[in-house]
Amino acid sequence: MALKFKYAAALIPWANPGDRFLRAGYREALPPLQRLKHAASLGVLDGVELMYPAEVNEENVQEVKRILSDTGLALAIVGTPISSERRFANGALTSRDPSVRRTAIDRVKAGMDMCAELGGNQIMFFLGQDGCDYSLEVDYEEAWSWMAESIAEMASHRDDVKICLEYKPFEPRRHIFLNDVGTALHLIDQIDADNVGVVLDTGHALMANETLGESIWLLHRARRLYHFHFNDNYRGWDDDMIVGSIHFMPFVEAVYWLKRIGYSSWISLDLFPYREDPDLAVTESIAYLKRLDEIVDEIGLETITELLHHNDGARTLRVINRHVLGTN
Amino acid sequence: MALKFKYAAALIPWANPGDRFLRAGYREALPPLQRLKHAASLGVLDGVELMYPAEVNEENVQEVKRILSDTGLALAIVGTPISSERRFANGALTSRDPSVRRTAIDRVKAGMDMCAELGGNQIMFFLGQDGCDYSLEVDYEEAWSWMAESIAEMASHRDDVKICLEYKPFEPRRHIFLNDVGTALHLIDQIDADNVGVVLDTGHALMANETLGESIWLLHRARRLYHFHFNDNYRGWDDDMIVGSIHFMPFVEAVYWLKRIGYSSWISLDLFPYREDPDLAVTESIAYLKRLDEIVDEIGLETITELLHHNDGARTLRVINRHVLGTN
Amino acid sequence: MALKFKYAAALIPWANPGDRFLRAGYREALPPLQRLKHAASLGVLDGVELMYPAEVNEENVQEVKRILSDTGLALAIVGTPISSERRFANGALTSRDPSVRRTAIDRVKAGMDMCAELGGNQIMFFLGQDGCDYSLEVDYEEAWSWMAESIAEMASHRDDVKICLEYKPFEPRRHIFLNDVGTALHLIDQIDADNVGVVLDTGHALMANETLGESIWLLHRARRLYHFHFNDNYRGWDDDMIVGSIHFMPFVEAVYWLKRIGYSSWISLDLFPYREDPDLAVTESIAYLKRLDEIVDEIGLETITELLHHNDGARTLRVINRHVLGTN
Amino acid sequence: MALKFKYAAALIPWANPGDRFLRAGYREALPPLQRLKHAASLGVLDGVELMYPAEVNEENVQEVKRILSDTGLALAIVGTPISSERRFANGALTSRDPSVRRTAIDRVKAGMDMCAELGGNQIMFFLGQDGCDYSLEVDYEEAWSWMAESIAEMASHRDDVKICLEYKPFEPRRHIFLNDVGTALHLIDQIDADNVGVVLDTGHALMANETLGESIWLLHRARRLYHFHFNDNYRGWDDDMIVGSIHFMPFVEAVYWLKRIGYSSWISLDLFPYREDPDLAVTESIAYLKRLDEIVDEIGLETITELLHHNDGARTLRVINRHVLGTN
Repeated sequence: MALKFKYAAALIPWANPGDRFLRAGYREALPPLQRLKHAASLGVLDGVELMYPAEVNEENVQEVKRILSDTGLALAIVGTPISSERRFANGALTSRDPSVRRTAIDRVKAGMDMCAELGGNQIMFFLGQDGCDYSLEVDYEEAWSWMAESIAEMASHRDDVKICLEYKPFEPRRHIFLNDVGTALHLIDQIDADNVGVVLDTGHALMANETLGESIWLLHRARRLYHFHFNDNYRGWDDDMIVGSIHFMPFVEAVYWLKRIGYSSWISLDLFPYREDPDLAVTESIAYLKRLDEIVDEIGLETITELLHHNDGARTLRVINRHVLGTN
Repeated sequence: MALKFKYAAALIPWANPGDRFLRAGYREALPPLQRLKHAASLGVLDGVELMYPAEVNEENVQEVKRILSDTGLALAIVGTPISSERRFANGALTSRDPSVRRTAIDRVKAGMDMCAELGGNQIMFFLGQDGCDYSLEVDYEEAWSWMAESIAEMASHRDDVKICLEYKPFEPRRHIFLNDVGTALHLIDQIDADNVGVVLDTGHALMANETLGESIWLLHRARRLYHFHFNDNYRGWDDDMIVGSIHFMPFVEAVYWLKRIGYSSWISLDLFPYREDPDLAVTESIAYLKRLDEIVDEIGLETITELLHHNDGARTLRVINRHVLGTN
Repeated sequence: MALKFKYAAALIPWANPGDRFLRAGYREALPPLQRLKHAASLGVLDGVELMYPAEVNEENVQEVKRILSDTGLALAIVGTPISSERRFANGALTSRDPSVRRTAIDRVKAGMDMCAELGGNQIMFFLGQDGCDYSLEVDYEEAWSWMAESIAEMASHRDDVKICLEYKPFEPRRHIFLNDVGTALHLIDQIDADNVGVVLDTGHALMANETLGESIWLLHRARRLYHFHFNDNYRGWDDDMIVGSIHFMPFVEAVYWLKRIGYSSWISLDLFPYREDPDLAVTESIAYLKRLDEIVDEIGLETITELLHHNDGARTLRVINRHVLGTN
Repeated sequence: MALKFKYAAALIPWANPGDRFLRAGYREALPPLQRLKHAASLGVLDGVELMYPAEVNEENVQEVKRILSDTGLALAIVGTPISSERRFANGALTSRDPSVRRTAIDRVKAGMDMCAELGGNQIMFFLGQDGCDYSLEVDYEEAWSWMAESIAEMASHRDDVKICLEYKPFEPRRHIFLNDVGTALHLIDQIDADNVGVVLDTGHALMANETLGESIWLLHRARRLYHFHFNDNYRGWDDDMIVGSIHFMPFVEAVYWLKRIGYSSWISLDLFPYREDPDLAVTESIAYLKRLDEIVDEIGLETITELLHHNDGARTLRVINRHVLGTN
């Protein structure tokens, strides 16, 4: 019987996304607990991502548990952001100020505890301020060493919660140290821990000129593909757009490889619908991914695998287009 | 009754495309006249693009006419390349050497005559060597003035043949003067001629961060959309790939706008299938475009126009995905 | 006697720049009038850019005049932003809601009046929300027509204040209609007004793959180069970095062409020093530009013009490097 | 006493570089042995790169030795290209055809033997055909496993010759498996060999959005920085331009880090001067790099290291600009 994916989403669409030109945001935010209830009300999600401490924290944890239980939503992952505060402007894990690094590490550990308290088993963060903008403004020797040490310390905090590193080439820093799948794997190769892996964000991978199926395979081979974010973009920036709004075949490839490796963790959405209907942005993305899942089943994993072995993009495309579009 | 597009292709797929690492090309070329017959044998093309003098010339013109007549293929356009010879390395129309400019102008004029001789009504060229690589290596004042003068002279050669300028941001020069739709229109605004317009190449437009529908509209509004090339790419380079192999919605938008403006000239392919089956590359691209044409008809121009007026990408996507993919 | 440039800056460096990950901004802002005094205190600026109504408005205009007079700073330009409010999220000049377009037009007109009141002669805005993100979410026919009409109406408001359009390929919209130099010139070609031109922002031009010298020349030839913004970036995004922090030769080319055309308006800075010392960001950029100005004088305009005529980037580079770096 | 770099160059500038629009090349090539003599005659190179078998081979090896000895040029490295033949079009080390993989492996081994015969100690290749263009046309599981096995076999062929892998994001394939520094290190982490490392090509690293100093540091930390190629580009493509023709500070950073880690291998050039004077392209690049080397010495490694620790790009820039440009 075919494995079914579990679908989740981050709650950003209802949290008033903004940008540097409209920092007040493009619409009013729902309060955190209402976002959660609202997400449940869409009826298409199996789980949610919750940010610690902005959306779930020591104060509201019991209420969050109750809502999850009432709505039947599972906790997909806890986000523990360490890139969105002024104190982390020159780096969280790679700041030259040891007290800043301590704050960041402790924040993630507290998020791991919160995750366990909620019955979850994985947390994630991205290192958006741990990078550089200008030439000759960072001592990479120090930075890389602090980054590895900090993550190792987090990993040893508790082994029942997995740490998902979210690599990304740039933004907000013009260059982020943890910038792509190869660098993430090289970093993990140096950390002696079984609970440090990766959340692959398709948008970040497209920015990094990666081929989605290959990145999935490389992470799987290393047993480090822990979590998955879908969104679409124009390849030059992290647009966080509705899945399938730009690309088609790259997402078919991603779904094929997720199924081929027997991926059994969450398929989640990381969307920033600044001007679009946030409910539609989420429901359309989920509907699209579920349809791709079916399409791969309908054509058959074996048939697609056999196509790979012809090394002819035109031949694969003919099969997919005939099935999906009814071309002849 | 809905307008039907006429489909054509350039013959490059059978002409042994190569690159700087494999200048000998990725497979053996068919001789020019065989390319033509072979293209006809696919049974999906209404017309072809022919390069002057490489594929059609004073020597073989009678034979080309006979093949066109025998196969029922129409001549979509004559290409008159002025970027692929060593003498044009520092510019064809903008070379500082007047004899080089003269050679380029005369070449295009001869191509116009050949086009008329073949019963055609439009020629095209792109100005791939008319640009620059390094800072401070070109006097833009001279270059722009020679470019405009040269094109004006070509235009006055005969008014029964239209000149299609093919803009492109870069390659082979790192910066091409005639680099995007706005620049092309600004140049045309300065030339007093009714037979100078544009061939919009979707790959070039994607490289230039253009939105296909908008570029179609801007050219149409100026009555300068003469010819159209489809191909796909990853937005960073002119990959000349099979249509639909990467993008989906941008092509739906393109087809909608072509239909909305009542475009009645050729839809042609400019593909470089280095490693793929060349026949499949062409037939799949045509099948895909014909299916997009149907899809837009099925949904209806008016329905899509109404969607535009909601300014919500999510809503449009829902309609398209439901129709095309059967999402719900 | 060599023409001397006048140097100015926008006050953003002291206005707490932020981004979508740190919307609270990277440091505390100075209040508007203190920004102005602080900018004067650096001792390197001849003028400033003031935003209407955030920095100068009907309430504080007399005080602003006094500070300008006391400090000897000139008003370089008034900015009249129409991309930074929620009401303009789906377009300012191209919104489908006529009352939104009206608000935007009136805002710019009021800014023109304020500019005149301050003794200035030019205003500027960029159309960052007038664009699109998704395929098939905008009716380009309407949008382009409203954009041209709106600007024509502004232009006719008063002819003693020039309107500087600031083109930019994208951000915040993923595609901005007024996206590059060619498109700006094509738009201006359609508006019958003598006071509509362009502010060339080097960062926006680099994003658009333009060659700075060529864009300067094209705007000058059309008599539409009204204002100039310098900043640097990595070519993929509007990083608004210190001038010369990444590129070198492209800026030498820009300065050469500004001098060659006898540019006599302002050289201004549009910098976002999120994490850097804001005073240093400004003073270093000015020092750099003044040195480039001297370098071009030292080598000589004629010498450089003669180099252009050799069409050999290596030869030009040798002359510049020998002079600047002392290579041999 | 300060370490002095050794400077070398590939001979491409005199080998008639071409591209897909001018496959016949932009000028006549010198025959291989004359290229070598000509390179020596410039008087600025300590060594050269030689391609096997195109430039050095079993037939001419004695003559090559004699020329090297006569001219005093050292052999910097032997290139063993496996991306420039039709048989490798669908991959050299990752072809599904075992006989193709065998041919590629044997070619590299023969190049290693030739290198030893010439008294050299390192060879290099890049895997430009080992990648993909279309979605779902490669089985990454097979490909990665063949790639690692093939390189391991080469490494075990002889341990007195080091293998330098040249990573690159794309071209000729639209995606190359060995695409960036992190991926290269992750691959090397899996191969049990002490003689497999990396040639860092600055152009490839810029294409991959890397920060040159960081990539140098990461490779050095892993003891895998074996060889170094300088060239410049616009970050979107492998333009292989004269060093310093576009960027400045990124190259200062690269030279600082090379000196800080005590890099003692070759600094070489990989340039494609299609239209420029080839001798000038090489001599200017060398003069530029030697000057950067001096500049870093003049300012002092310790001073720059101290600047890194301020995490302020503006402050670093002030010091560099004052020293280099004489700004104040």
